[in-house]
Amino acid sequence: MAIEGHGMVRSLRIRLGMVGGGQGAFIGAVHRIAARLDDEFELVAGALSSTPEKAEASGRELGLAPDRIYTTFAAMAEAESRRKDGIEAVSIVTPNHMHLPIAREFLARGIHVICDKPMTATLEEAKELARLAAGSGRLFVLTHNYTGYPLIRQARAMVEAGELGEIRVVQAEYAQDWLTEKLEDTGQKQAGWRTDPGRSGPGGCIGDIGTHAYNLACFVTGLRLESVCADLTTFVVGRRLDDNVHVLLRFAGGAKGMLWASQVAPGNENGLRLRVYGSKGGLEWAQEEPNTMRFTPFGQPSRLLTRAGAGATAPAARVSRIPSGHPEGYLEAFANLYAEAARAIRTARTRGEPDAEVLYPTAEDGLAGLAFIDACLRSTAQDGAWVRL
Amino acid sequence: MAIEGHGMVRSLRIRLGMVGGGQGAFIGAVHRIAARLDDEFELVAGALSSTPEKAEASGRELGLAPDRIYTTFAAMAEAESRRKDGIEAVSIVTPNHMHLPIAREFLARGIHVICDKPMTATLEEAKELARLAAGSGRLFVLTHNYTGYPLIRQARAMVEAGELGEIRVVQAEYAQDWLTEKLEDTGQKQAGWRTDPGRSGPGGCIGDIGTHAYNLACFVTGLRLESVCADLTTFVVGRRLDDNVHVLLRFAGGAKGMLWASQVAPGNENGLRLRVYGSKGGLEWAQEEPNTMRFTPFGQPSRLLTRAGAGATAPAARVSRIPSGHPEGYLEAFANLYAEAARAIRTARTRGEPDAEVLYPTAEDGLAGLAFIDACLRSTAQDGAWVRL
Amino acid sequence: MAIEGHGMVRSLRIRLGMVGGGQGAFIGAVHRIAARLDDEFELVAGALSSTPEKAEASGRELGLAPDRIYTTFAAMAEAESRRKDGIEAVSIVTPNHMHLPIAREFLARGIHVICDKPMTATLEEAKELARLAAGSGRLFVLTHNYTGYPLIRQARAMVEAGELGEIRVVQAEYAQDWLTEKLEDTGQKQAGWRTDPGRSGPGGCIGDIGTHAYNLACFVTGLRLESVCADLTTFVVGRRLDDNVHVLLRFAGGAKGMLWASQVAPGNENGLRLRVYGSKGGLEWAQEEPNTMRFTPFGQPSRLLTRAGAGATAPAARVSRIPSGHPEGYLEAFANLYAEAARAIRTARTRGEPDAEVLYPTAEDGLAGLAFIDACLRSTAQDGAWVRL
Amino acid sequence: MAIEGHGMVRSLRIRLGMVGGGQGAFIGAVHRIAARLDDEFELVAGALSSTPEKAEASGRELGLAPDRIYTTFAAMAEAESRRKDGIEAVSIVTPNHMHLPIAREFLARGIHVICDKPMTATLEEAKELARLAAGSGRLFVLTHNYTGYPLIRQARAMVEAGELGEIRVVQAEYAQDWLTEKLEDTGQKQAGWRTDPGRSGPGGCIGDIGTHAYNLACFVTGLRLESVCADLTTFVVGRRLDDNVHVLLRFAGGAKGMLWASQVAPGNENGLRLRVYGSKGGLEWAQEEPNTMRFTPFGQPSRLLTRAGAGATAPAARVSRIPSGHPEGYLEAFANLYAEAARAIRTARTRGEPDAEVLYPTAEDGLAGLAFIDACLRSTAQDGAWVRL
Repeated sequence: MAIEGHGMVRSLRIRLGMVGGGQGAFIGAVHRIAARLDDEFELVAGALSSTPEKAEASGRELGLAPDRIYTTFAAMAEAESRRKDGIEAVSIVTPNHMHLPIAREFLARGIHVICDKPMTATLEEAKELARLAAGSGRLFVLTHNYTGYPLIRQARAMVEAGELGEIRVVQAEYAQDWLTEKLEDTGQKQAGWRTDPGRSGPGGCIGDIGTHAYNLACFVTGLRLESVCADLTTFVVGRRLDDNVHVLLRFAGGAKGMLWASQVAPGNENGLRLRVYGSKGGLEWAQEEPNTMRFTPFGQPSRLLTRAGAGATAPAARVSRIPSGHPEGYLEAFANLYAEAARAIRTARTRGEPDAEVLYPTAEDGLAGLAFIDACLRSTAQDGAWVRL
Repeated sequence: MAIEGHGMVRSLRIRLGMVGGGQGAFIGAVHRIAARLDDEFELVAGALSSTPEKAEASGRELGLAPDRIYTTFAAMAEAESRRKDGIEAVSIVTPNHMHLPIAREFLARGIHVICDKPMTATLEEAKELARLAAGSGRLFVLTHNYTGYPLIRQARAMVEAGELGEIRVVQAEYAQDWLTEKLEDTGQKQAGWRTDPGRSGPGGCIGDIGTHAYNLACFVTGLRLESVCADLTTFVVGRRLDDNVHVLLRFAGGAKGMLWASQVAPGNENGLRLRVYGSKGGLEWAQEEPNTMRFTPFGQPSRLLTRAGAGATAPAARVSRIPSGHPEGYLEAFANLYAEAARAIRTARTRGEPDAEVLYPTAEDGLAGLAFIDACLRSTAQDGAWVRL
Repeated sequence: MAIEGHGMVRSLRIRLGMVGGGQGAFIGAVHRIAARLDDEFELVAGALSSTPEKAEASGRELGLAPDRIYTTFAAMAEAESRRKDGIEAVSIVTPNHMHLPIAREFLARGIHVICDKPMTATLEEAKELARLAAGSGRLFVLTHNYTGYPLIRQARAMVEAGELGEIRVVQAEYAQDWLTEKLEDTGQKQAGWRTDPGRSGPGGCIGDIGTHAYNLACFVTGLRLESVCADLTTFVVGRRLDDNVHVLLRFAGGAKGMLWASQVAPGNENGLRLRVYGSKGGLEWAQEEPNTMRFTPFGQPSRLLTRAGAGATAPAARVSRIPSGHPEGYLEAFANLYAEAARAIRTARTRGEPDAEVLYPTAEDGLAGLAFIDACLRSTAQDGAWVRL
Repeated sequence: MAIEGHGMVRSLRIRLGMVGGGQGAFIGAVHRIAARLDDEFELVAGALSSTPEKAEASGRELGLAPDRIYTTFAAMAEAESRRKDGIEAVSIVTPNHMHLPIAREFLARGIHVICDKPMTATLEEAKELARLAAGSGRLFVLTHNYTGYPLIRQARAMVEAGELGEIRVVQAEYAQDWLTEKLEDTGQKQAGWRTDPGRSGPGGCIGDIGTHAYNLACFVTGLRLESVCADLTTFVVGRRLDDNVHVLLRFAGGAKGMLWASQVAPGNENGLRLRVYGSKGGLEWAQEEPNTMRFTPFGQPSRLLTRAGAGATAPAARVSRIPSGHPEGYLEAFANLYAEAARAIRTARTRGEPDAEVLYPTAEDGLAGLAFIDACLRSTAQDGAWVRL
């Protein structure tokens, strides 16, 4: 296993900045823990809120040096790029509509970007950002964090190795229940921006979690989605964005699939699940119990694979810290993306040979995600017609 | 619980005949066990195969009196309807294309019909049979056997009582793997007729198991399906009927759903599952572990309901034989439909007041099933367009 | 699978009588369903209650011929043994203290005995009955029904074939909750006799369910228990027999084990579970989900075996009626013992070569069960000292 | 939830040293991640191995300042206690036999101690260390890390609040399989010292994991163990310490229990499980799926509690970082003990009022653990007699 196997000394920690993620935010704290877990990053600067007072208070609370607490991301990008000890990478954890302008600013100044998903609010923005990232010579890491789970890495490797045969059926789902009632009317911050088209973009549930399910399905199967038939619904009266997503999927090569995402399914907390079936076998995995995966070779008893346990493969072991039976969870999977980013950034530092095993979602994946959202919205607008991506 | 609570003496057992179900058949034996379990029926006559020698041998093996072993259903219908001790009901367990002519013959002679599903091979036939059944004054019981599970009865009652609030989302699935390879080429009897349009009708997986999932979803929710968008696929090269079914569902009143049925999903043996979510709570049930059901009232811990256990309701207890923790299964659920039929037949015998609690799928449900199959086939033929039922 | 594969015609059904199991009893009805399921037995006589009126009413309700409804078991034994069409076998489903006198009477008259467990109320009685059974030339089938589960048969065969290596650790448990409160004070019939030393014998929970767990552990592992250290407890104030059982086990050959049985463990309905570990692998099975078993070969991913599914062995398939994924349960397992009895009785009829695969618990097993109860009671009386069986 | 809610700035991070945990160790790295996760500690000094070269290399790899890499713990204690910026706390992660001398040294110099379990190798040592800790005025935190799981905190609170009624039965188990074969002969470091009486003390499995199960049972129930009957076994030929533990438990007040710990149970990776039953209800929890717990109020449907989900209580929420459905695992639970230690150390810094909610295992718990080990060894030495603690 990879526990502290990097052999890196802490004096070489990567200097990290953060935009967004101030007091009251959820995902900013997650990014900070993820960055800290393997001791590869040091948070040294932040523009943690668009509200100056909150930016200040948040920065102080995190112990940032006063001169590295910024009230705008632009000021931070400029100042940090001039410092000798300036940040090498920035984490963007704002609402979706700000991802593009912020990323543009930092990439332009040669700073690596680690960006939350979905990559942008609209497909147009995504196209621009993908273009910018490609031309920047810098890393762009999109935190589709579920791709960091060791057994998801193993699933991808097993599909790639042909252990499932030709993929036929992909069943992806992501069910939650937190928006079963009209939470956005209570002032709850998360519900507020995630149901606001101005900050989330035109997709609600489809953008917030549907993209995760889509990304995971493609990450594991390596398939390219060709067309969708989507039926997005808003069940809660007065809500401004969709809260339930039903999509039929057709992949290049003939595989078919279904994707269900919902934020109004009582009893589902964070039910991201993926089932993939091929001509030779299947795989079944659920995020809420991420340390086991069922492998079902056709005609044989099904097998219960465990993270780092018997039957674990190199791609899973590589991103495991502790032995099987000692559950790793969401934060560890998130941290795995930061660990991958760290490996890539260190390589970039030394202009060394890239590590072929480094694996993280890129701007291309982010663009694919926005194209998926866009296609689902177009299909829904045409009353559920099939549309091509 | 209902264990032997009917208070019926065996001398009054209902005299039953059977068409189909001879040696080598699967479902015929299941029907016989189901009929026998509660000691309400006595099998006294049979036309057990369309092959005369096999009909004879099968009848002898089951211990039928020689003069009540028939080689054609028509002969049986005629002879039995003339006997004083003739059969009161007949079970039809042939391939689908024979259901209509056989049922017509027995209904016409005043004999109750218990018929396997799907009701017929085509929608046209279903319309005719529904009309015949309605006008016959006799019972027509369609063995959508999964409606016999106690917790499915409880689920239906809970939805009806409003415990889930307004239904929003219905996720139905029925996954198997036995046709992952081209089993029909090996001479396996089940695979043979189920992939043969001449005997199964134009639907393969959709007719064999998709209808079960559809029927169960409607049985539990009480919703009426309005339109579907279906993508039926044949994955195994050379197979003549669909082996995978993806359908989006729109119900009257605004609920939405998905239905997945597959016979090519390795590791799935008989994975019929239903999840229903409303504005107040949800229910989740899986046929392979039928003695438990998860109930998820919004905002509260989810509850594990057990058949006949704490929290069991009258509709579940009524069709349970033994205490909770003592698993009942497929045969008991199947037998529950026979028990319901027995109750109704006894009432018919005495021209008594019908028991309001008697509940079984009827010809109307069978017609709805064929309409569903037809709509899915039409949608698929139009490349996945939405079609109305 | 074995579905109706016996090729027996119904005119040859085995004529069965029953002692006990009248109105309000639980296990009598279970025996009747079990006897009926495979159509091998016909119940033709009964002394169904020790209360004459109830015996009469129960017999009529079951449709017995009036002259074969008896009010004492002795009268039944005598009369039936004189009839040409007299019963060939009798099921004894009374409280424990009556098993010996009843069995003695029927064995003496050449009638096979199928007897509920524990075999007797005391060890002395068990010794006598074992002697009688051995000398009777008739079958004595003890309905330790859990040995009828197909996967339990498979587990036994796997251990015997050495797939687990040398057995080291045996963890058996049987947890219920129905006696958490003082149910016997409410007039509930089951609770009444099962907590009454006069009818149950000196063991409560240990006799009612502890013996099942013990029997199952020995049935699967083939091990012989050498000594026990038992701590039997009565938690409910005023209860006359133990309601919780903790036992350490030492087997001949060095294997060790634990047995927990409880009737005061809230949330446990009928939690019989067995886990067996050897030098090469382990097996884990739970009665409440009897259609799956986990097999854990050391150093490999664990495998999920299913009844009649991939990896099923001949001993499991032999006692399965329907395909995997179609759950069989408690009644089917119970019926498997009746089916085994039927095979043995048919062989006895014809004085044919015994079927080597026929397998059911015998009077020897019943004696072992009482010896186990006795040892646990002795150990408890000595404040938990180790005692030999 | 508590995510970064401490409001502490990083400049005030607690200065931490570590003894043991150099290259190749497992638990040292776990302690470091746990210390880092909430950004409350900074590792600044270490005597990471008893082999000087390894101590040096390990210190450099972790980025320690050269002058704070020590080759003996005594040198470290002396030097650090003299520095103005010396360590405030030390983590001891060596084999068991070194815990006492190291802890003595640091406590004597006024440095808080965080010590891995079991607290010492022998009961005598434990008594001395408990006395030293009590008199030191410094914290002694014993990392019985499983007490850090949020749902374990909730379980304890529920028992304390009387939701289970009077506790009757406690079933604790901790099953692993990694020593099924003679791993210690292969040179594997963990297996080496854990099966070596010189480094582990006289208990093998009982000390390594049996104490965890014992500690957890007492932590949750608040019961005091009075006597045990233990049957410790060494199944693997030639192994020097026990590898399987069977114990009957009697608690003060009348509750009874069982404890099974094994390192030779194939298919069990890290199967720590606790089930507690009282007169009003029960709780069931398993470490490998730590984010759910089954609560079984008698006579009601059982409830599935989730960490931080509906039904979560303050004690669970207090040590949760992320929402329910986002699994937390072993490292987070471990980190919770460090977070508790941090709260207590900060209070000690300011001589403030102690936080009544701070909760961690102490030297008293460590002493109880050694007394448990000692009693089990004495019982086993007397062939399984009951012995008092």
